[in-house]
Amino acid sequence: MSDNDLRPGEVAVELPAATDAGLYFIGVIHTPWKIRAECPKRGTSDGPVCTIVIDERWQQALAGIARHKRIQVLYWMHQARRDLVLQTPFQKDTAGTFALRSPVRPNPIASSLVEVIGVVGSTLEVRGLDCLDGTPLIDLKPEHGAHER
Amino acid sequence: MSDNDLRPGEVAVELPAATDAGLYFIGVIHTPWKIRAECPKRGTSDGPVCTIVIDERWQQALAGIARHKRIQVLYWMHQARRDLVLQTPFQKDTAGTFALRSPVRPNPIASSLVEVIGVVGSTLEVRGLDCLDGTPLIDLKPEHGAHER
Repeated sequence: MSDNDLRPGEVAVELPAATDAGLYFIGVIHTPWKIRAECPKRGTSDGPVCTIVIDERWQQALAGIARHKRIQVLYWMHQARRDLVLQTPFQKDTAGTFALRSPVRPNPIASSLVEVIGVVGSTLEVRGLDCLDGTPLIDLKPEHGAHER
Repeated sequence: MSDNDLRPGEVAVELPAATDAGLYFIGVIHTPWKIRAECPKRGTSDGPVCTIVIDERWQQALAGIARHKRIQVLYWMHQARRDLVLQTPFQKDTAGTFALRSPVRPNPIASSLVEVIGVVGSTLEVRGLDCLDGTPLIDLKPEHGAHER
C-alpha cells in the first residue's frame, strides 16, 4: 500500500485553494532515522542524542536556552499528507484527525518535549525526538511553566 | 512606545526573502480579550470558557475529541513581529527568543494545553486559553501521552 492510499474508514477533503500564512524553516533536525518505518513511535528521554542545527540568521536567539532543562520543539512533518479528516492508524480504530497525534493533519506541525544535553555554537544536543533525519525546524521554546536550572 | 520600537538590548535580523511552507487557518478562537493588553499572561484551568470554531471543511476531524480531557491547541499569533533574536520582556532581562515563550518569534505559533468542556457541532468549549479574540487556529491534538477519559 502506498502512503497515498486510503485505509478503511478514512476520509479525505479537498484542500483550500491557498494557504493563509507562511513558515520559515529556521534549522534542521538530525536523527539516526532515515525512513519513516525506522522512527520510534514516541521519543523518550533515554533515546539517542539528536542534534538541532539552527540557521546562522537565528543563532543569537539561542542565548540563555541552556538554562532550561527541557524545551519544546516544533517541527514540520514534511512527508505527511494534509487532507485526511478521518484516519485509521495501524491496528487502531478510525478517529478524527484532531483526536490523534498522527503526522497526517491540515498543518503537519509536531510538538515534542526534549531534554537539553548541551549547546555548542548553533547546535543543540537533545534527547526525546522521534522524527526523521533532515526534518525542518520551526520553533524552540522553554517547556510550559518550566523553571530554569 | 509603539509595538515596533526596540527596547534596550533587543536585536532584529532581516527576515528571509521567502517562506518555506504554508499554513491553513482551520478555524477561529473566541475569547473575552479584544486587545493584547487585556490578555492574561498565562491561561489557567479556572479561567473563562473560550470557544474554538472549526471551519466546516474540517469538522469531521473532531470525531472522538471529546474523549480527551485535555488537548493541545496550536494557534497563530497574527499580531506579533517575527524578526527579533534578542528580546527584553517587560520588567525582565534580555534573552534569546528561543529561551522565551514570547509571541515574538520567527514563526509566531503558540501552543496551549486546555481543558475540554464540551463539543457541539463544529464548536469546542475549552478553558485555559490566553489569546486575543479572533486568533486563527492551526491545530488541535490530544495532550502528549494522555489517556482517554
